[in-house]
Amino acid sequence: MKLKLIGRFISILLIITTLFLCVPLVFSIYYKDGASLGFLITITLNASFGSAGLLLTKNPPKSLSRKEGFILVVLSWVVISVFGSIPYVIIGNLSFTDAFFETMSGFTTTGASILKNIEAMPKSLLFWRSLTHWLGGMGIVVLAVAILPMLGIGGIKLIKAEAPGPSIEKISPRITETAKYLWFAYILLSAFETVLLLVGGMDLFDALTHTFGTMATGGFSPKNSSVAYFHSAYIDWVITIFMFIAGANFSIHFKVLTGKFSSLKDEEFLAYSAIVIIAVLLVSLDNLAIYKDFLNSLRFSAFQVVSIVTTTGYATADYEKWHSLSKVILFTFMFVGGCAGSTGGSIKVIRIYTLLKQAVNELKYNIHPKGVFTLTINKQTIRKNIVYSIAGFFFLYIATFFVVALVVSAFGVDLLTSLSASAATLGNIGPGFGGVGPTDNYAWLPSPAKWVLSFAMLSGRLEIYTVFVLFTPAFWKK
Amino acid sequence: MKLKLIGRFISILLIITTLFLCVPLVFSIYYKDGASLGFLITITLNASFGSAGLLLTKNPPKSLSRKEGFILVVLSWVVISVFGSIPYVIIGNLSFTDAFFETMSGFTTTGASILKNIEAMPKSLLFWRSLTHWLGGMGIVVLAVAILPMLGIGGIKLIKAEAPGPSIEKISPRITETAKYLWFAYILLSAFETVLLLVGGMDLFDALTHTFGTMATGGFSPKNSSVAYFHSAYIDWVITIFMFIAGANFSIHFKVLTGKFSSLKDEEFLAYSAIVIIAVLLVSLDNLAIYKDFLNSLRFSAFQVVSIVTTTGYATADYEKWHSLSKVILFTFMFVGGCAGSTGGSIKVIRIYTLLKQAVNELKYNIHPKGVFTLTINKQTIRKNIVYSIAGFFFLYIATFFVVALVVSAFGVDLLTSLSASAATLGNIGPGFGGVGPTDNYAWLPSPAKWVLSFAMLSGRLEIYTVFVLFTPAFWKK
Repeated sequence: MKLKLIGRFISILLIITTLFLCVPLVFSIYYKDGASLGFLITITLNASFGSAGLLLTKNPPKSLSRKEGFILVVLSWVVISVFGSIPYVIIGNLSFTDAFFETMSGFTTTGASILKNIEAMPKSLLFWRSLTHWLGGMGIVVLAVAILPMLGIGGIKLIKAEAPGPSIEKISPRITETAKYLWFAYILLSAFETVLLLVGGMDLFDALTHTFGTMATGGFSPKNSSVAYFHSAYIDWVITIFMFIAGANFSIHFKVLTGKFSSLKDEEFLAYSAIVIIAVLLVSLDNLAIYKDFLNSLRFSAFQVVSIVTTTGYATADYEKWHSLSKVILFTFMFVGGCAGSTGGSIKVIRIYTLLKQAVNELKYNIHPKGVFTLTINKQTIRKNIVYSIAGFFFLYIATFFVVALVVSAFGVDLLTSLSASAATLGNIGPGFGGVGPTDNYAWLPSPAKWVLSFAMLSGRLEIYTVFVLFTPAFWKK
Repeated sequence: MKLKLIGRFISILLIITTLFLCVPLVFSIYYKDGASLGFLITITLNASFGSAGLLLTKNPPKSLSRKEGFILVVLSWVVISVFGSIPYVIIGNLSFTDAFFETMSGFTTTGASILKNIEAMPKSLLFWRSLTHWLGGMGIVVLAVAILPMLGIGGIKLIKAEAPGPSIEKISPRITETAKYLWFAYILLSAFETVLLLVGGMDLFDALTHTFGTMATGGFSPKNSSVAYFHSAYIDWVITIFMFIAGANFSIHFKVLTGKFSSLKDEEFLAYSAIVIIAVLLVSLDNLAIYKDFLNSLRFSAFQVVSIVTTTGYATADYEKWHSLSKVILFTFMFVGGCAGSTGGSIKVIRIYTLLKQAVNELKYNIHPKGVFTLTINKQTIRKNIVYSIAGFFFLYIATFFVVALVVSAFGVDLLTSLSASAATLGNIGPGFGGVGPTDNYAWLPSPAKWVLSFAMLSGRLEIYTVFVLFTPAFWKK
């Protein structure tokens, strides 16, 4: 085990986190919200541990094995969530359980919150909360690979272990370049959304925090009533469109930004667009009686459908008061998620699309048992072992959903809440139904349930396999 | 298309149904419940159509193509459900929608009922209702293959299209023999349960109807309060044990009945036993506060857990009043089901067991990408295309579950009821949660929802593929 390299990598992540922690510190000084000292302590702790780690891990080996890559990624996420939760404890007076839950929810872009009165918190702490989304969205390990040459060779393993989607498309033959391009598209789109929100009348704080929550498909809002707070059709539509963008593959965004519009013909993107459009229309019609005119209904329906399918979790309406069809569409969408290579969570469109094509092939195979049916997506034949891997993922996802719900229910949480809390955390969505609906939060859940749901968030964000391999005996065998 | 052969087969099924309709007629005469005329009309109609069909389809071709097999099986089920619903219409004064729903629910061994006051119905009609379970349980097509030599060669295709489970184990090299042996074990075990229920104080009517509901894992009871009516620990335990038996593979039962006890070492049977035992213990402990002493809690918990996992659907308790853990266990078990080759529905233990093993292999593959991991069950290597087929089934099952719930919710049925009604009909279980809980029924649902759920029952009973192939364009291409 190359502990030295793993230690060095995590130390560097702590230093990176420290740099980002300076931003809320600046906000804290500007707003005089009394959190400056807390952030200074956090920065000192992060920097000390980071520096000590760097000193202790000089001259590490250059490459990582596959196994070490898994450990590195999972450990990185746990460690930054532990260190990232310090401000919540010392500034927000939260218990460590609650602080860790909120930080994990932030980094994994879940957006499930234990804060009962969000607006009572210092603004700088809320800024840090939203910033964790933005760092976790594109992936902090991806970021490290992008800016550090130290893992030039092993980087692909790490990105694969962290990145969302069954396969990462190589925009560039060099993985560090790919990581840089993805982050470039992410930053550019974030800047664009921030400007549009500023134009819509938000102040810089609100514009940045809501951009972080959107682009990372996170869902934390510094407002108690989420995006509904602004009562602005303009803001609703800007966020709806950017949530939709964030739920699509960033490789496509990079290509479109560089003028290659043909990349929009991607089958997954088309499927994603189609199901979103159909669902938005259905929900808009279903909501017509509630919102009176169609455009108004479209505004609230589109926002919520896109918010759930992209696994963002922002709310402009209490969808639990909607009609049944709309609720079942939202519940179903909790198991869909965005595209591969997006910041969205859950199962993802490409997996469902692949499994649907495979199921159709199986139906054909039932008719012609000697036929050979290939599975092609974007004119490329999908190899059987990839379909196998996707089928395994799908099964583990559904099985994990049930197991997490079972464990949560064992602590007395009711049926619908257990099921939807499991789906909402595993899918990195945030709000669910019942006791964790859009107007509720996760504060009231028993502590053990919060730990289980934190585990579900991490498993969902790292796409099951990366976390679950650590629990197989085969992993620890020499 | 060999319409003549298909027509002849269905005509024979109608004749067989006619013979079975004579039993409730006898009951009706004995009980003087006023239903005799109704049954006479039904018998006349069935016999006339059956005979006319036989006359019109003389000298049919001898063998069936695969496609024709699918059409024959699906059409058989639809036709006998249409003819089987006549008594409900003319004796029970039900609408055709309700009558068809109840008959499909009977034949598919679902046990979801639209009868509001069951005990107000003539006893002979209730006998017919339970008899549909028993005929559908082991499979009416299987029965026809067993007793008719006409399909000596094509029979295997039909049995595969109708039989539960990914593969039918050949007890005998000849398929008609296999079908006979399965029906033999089924009849013997049914007789055994009937005797035990008679010993427990039931009259012949109650003993037979409850045996039909048990052995077919159906769940129709002629009592409004289901098995709870009898207030007998003895009866509860007899039915619990026979539901467990009915949820296991009948090939195993046949072997055990002929002295081959080693067949109990079957991996699926062991997995099935293990999850049932674990769930029963968990639910018993969870229910301790409700039922005071452990044995009492064990009695009610075991009954309900076995009833749901085997997809029977009998009730001795209103499990919606149980604690959350027990409810989530029951909800999860709605997606498990019995063993392959049992009369149980849903996904089935062998499929989940196979997918779990495959997922573990995928985890290993993540660690050792160049490794070769075979999947073995009962010391036999499972070929990749079988796993592929199971993975396709699993995906289609989950997708169908969501789609059915969506369509039902479009008619205004609430979220939890839509989800659980979909799971309860697709899995051939019967009761669910919310508006279709163990103390409710399906009568209040809008008519279109009843048709969709009837379709779900048939799709579940014929294991998705057999019904869904008919909806592929490839099926209808020359």
